[in-house]
Amino acid sequence: MDVLDKGFVNLVNFMGDDLAVVASARVSNGITLEEASKGQENDQKLINYLMKHRHGTPFEHTAFTFFVKAPIFIAREWMRHRVGSFNEQSGRYTEFDPEFYVPDRFRQPAEINKQGSEFINDPHADKWLQTHIETISLNSFDSYKFLLNRGVARELARLVLPLNMYTQYYWTVNARALMNFLNLRCGEDAQWEIRQYAEAIKEMFEEKMPMTFWAWKENGYLAP
Amino acid sequence: MDVLDKGFVNLVNFMGDDLAVVASARVSNGITLEEASKGQENDQKLINYLMKHRHGTPFEHTAFTFFVKAPIFIAREWMRHRVGSFNEQSGRYTEFDPEFYVPDRFRQPAEINKQGSEFINDPHADKWLQTHIETISLNSFDSYKFLLNRGVARELARLVLPLNMYTQYYWTVNARALMNFLNLRCGEDAQWEIRQYAEAIKEMFEEKMPMTFWAWKENGYLAP
Amino acid sequence: MDVLDKGFVNLVNFMGDDLAVVASARVSNGITLEEASKGQENDQKLINYLMKHRHGTPFEHTAFTFFVKAPIFIAREWMRHRVGSFNEQSGRYTEFDPEFYVPDRFRQPAEINKQGSEFINDPHADKWLQTHIETISLNSFDSYKFLLNRGVARELARLVLPLNMYTQYYWTVNARALMNFLNLRCGEDAQWEIRQYAEAIKEMFEEKMPMTFWAWKENGYLAP
Amino acid sequence: MDVLDKGFVNLVNFMGDDLAVVASARVSNGITLEEASKGQENDQKLINYLMKHRHGTPFEHTAFTFFVKAPIFIAREWMRHRVGSFNEQSGRYTEFDPEFYVPDRFRQPAEINKQGSEFINDPHADKWLQTHIETISLNSFDSYKFLLNRGVARELARLVLPLNMYTQYYWTVNARALMNFLNLRCGEDAQWEIRQYAEAIKEMFEEKMPMTFWAWKENGYLAP
Repeated sequence: MDVLDKGFVNLVNFMGDDLAVVASARVSNGITLEEASKGQENDQKLINYLMKHRHGTPFEHTAFTFFVKAPIFIAREWMRHRVGSFNEQSGRYTEFDPEFYVPDRFRQPAEINKQGSEFINDPHADKWLQTHIETISLNSFDSYKFLLNRGVARELARLVLPLNMYTQYYWTVNARALMNFLNLRCGEDAQWEIRQYAEAIKEMFEEKMPMTFWAWKENGYLAP
Repeated sequence: MDVLDKGFVNLVNFMGDDLAVVASARVSNGITLEEASKGQENDQKLINYLMKHRHGTPFEHTAFTFFVKAPIFIAREWMRHRVGSFNEQSGRYTEFDPEFYVPDRFRQPAEINKQGSEFINDPHADKWLQTHIETISLNSFDSYKFLLNRGVARELARLVLPLNMYTQYYWTVNARALMNFLNLRCGEDAQWEIRQYAEAIKEMFEEKMPMTFWAWKENGYLAP
Repeated sequence: MDVLDKGFVNLVNFMGDDLAVVASARVSNGITLEEASKGQENDQKLINYLMKHRHGTPFEHTAFTFFVKAPIFIAREWMRHRVGSFNEQSGRYTEFDPEFYVPDRFRQPAEINKQGSEFINDPHADKWLQTHIETISLNSFDSYKFLLNRGVARELARLVLPLNMYTQYYWTVNARALMNFLNLRCGEDAQWEIRQYAEAIKEMFEEKMPMTFWAWKENGYLAP
Repeated sequence: MDVLDKGFVNLVNFMGDDLAVVASARVSNGITLEEASKGQENDQKLINYLMKHRHGTPFEHTAFTFFVKAPIFIAREWMRHRVGSFNEQSGRYTEFDPEFYVPDRFRQPAEINKQGSEFINDPHADKWLQTHIETISLNSFDSYKFLLNRGVARELARLVLPLNMYTQYYWTVNARALMNFLNLRCGEDAQWEIRQYAEAIKEMFEEKMPMTFWAWKENGYLAP
């Protein structure tokens, strides 16, 4: 699933579904796994109840593994989410390819929220920004290659690489932590770029856990 | 998989395998999922290397969900493992059945480690212990039922239940935390009862992740 | 600080205060520690903002260590809170004293929430309950002592001890996790006994972090 | 405490000491806080025992808050340590100052470990590297300022900033997680730059918890 100009996010592994939520919630009533489902309507009701009353643990008996390609400034925000597991490509062990995120639309500080940004409608400015960022990125990459060619160690040469450099990583996370990620990163005040990744993940989440997704949208999406 | 006199541990869900470990470890070399395996021998070597050098994160891209029935004093030790998710039957919401763990062999304080215990070879003492614990357990359960019948709330009546009462729970955990559990709970100084559960889990772990299991046995099992 | 009939909760160590919250929140504006406070009014405003918008990390630069004495059935609920550290007295290493929680007021299932309970006004029933639970507790304890005297290992003899046995433990937790504990355990649907502990902790929290406490009460207390 | 050319690490808050370790370890023997210490020699013995046998939880009843200024590529490695709390300056909310880490010594790939690096003895090469990295860093910063001046939003302009840009953050961590950080980041195969921070932290750790430090050095430092 493509995101931004050269990134992607793929779901490579998944465990558990809406039934895993239902079964673990009903264990507190002493019901075994075989008897967990009480029909779709009742199960949906239970999931809604759990979501509304913030009973989070039943959603933890699930796991998603994503393989992500994203610019470093996005990876930085992403990896602040501590509940979950990351393995990322290392600039000490591998040489980077010249792949940068180059925005194709100009954004200025937002009127209302000065810390955010908003698109303007000016194809000329868009083109200008794109060219400028592409040029400076390639310039930095030339420096990187030059340092490597002169015998500088990879871990030192990477210092000059810019934050829009693409990196890639595995991310494994349960549905509870995933919903927390979506709550924060689909939000109005999330940076536009990470929101694109969050929206892609939201679609995969909906496909895999439709009942949980529905309950989350009703009770969690706009929640403070 | 039966454990103790009335308990069990079942693997109800599983995600990831040895390949998930290998793939996430090799992401730091910029290799995609499709190219992750380099043949069984090389993969085993890599897993051994990760285990030996305590690179734990690649083992986190996996998940096991177990359904467990165990006495409360075992559940108490088990739930001290914080990395993982639990949902347990609640004595506030359900009435307990009269199911207790009744040991059938006498254990005295161990000669060497006074905090542990060791079996003695005395069928008479075994029988005596079994009868005694069964009697006092049923006695406590009678009190519990009596309190309930007199209208006492469940959450209050349960106060008199003993620690050998059976409870049940879901446990979801990744392979890294699972190995930590096994390191502690298969050990010589673990209580005999929880070791029986750990040994059962060890078998399921071996079946699902044979290469990781092998590396763990070689490098982790007896590790301090 | 006494809680229930024989329990307590003491704050034995504390780090950080409202200023630690303010300073870490303002680091994102590049302000150093020395310049962190902008006067009490502005600091309170900032803390309110963080609380309202669920920006939790600034509250994590604090730590409380409590020493707690509580019945086992309460400790079981308490230790399900995974963000934090516990060290508890072990029934394998020490012999228990005959200290039990003995409720002095009768509670029946609640009218509205069948899983909860409510007090009734009947001194006779209160007395009856108290006597009954005291008797059965001492009965179980006699069995425990009897088993020990006959040479049974401590870890095995403890099986017959009831859930209202007192235990004690250290608990270290940051303000964010503490507020989560209070949200759940001061709530209407928390069991009455753990609510008594939560209320005691709430007072200590208020004393140590008055501005955070105020913001939490305004924005977090009744939050779903 | 100065680290690298423009960085630092300061201990701004601390809770708990060797006695907190000792007291929480002895709670399992039912001893209260007042009676926790059994003299320095016995306390040291206990701490050694805990460290050697990897009983980690008693070390968690402590907390350190550091204020750190470090280049982004270091912060990236640092924030992969999930047990602990971070609050960092944000490039969305503040404009960066032109402060870059400029290495003053040339490093080439290490002979033995190709993924690491080693110093060479060539003042000419050192000078060349320094000048080159300074130039390209300032070049990137000029671009950043240029973009801001043309009205590009901060969150977008920062894309061109290099990984050797300085950032700053608060880090709160307990002694157990701190020792894990030191085990990994004082090691031979840690990048030279983060090792400088780890060495500075090691000194502060030694000062605050001398007995724990000693036990860690004896039993943990070179541990696999």
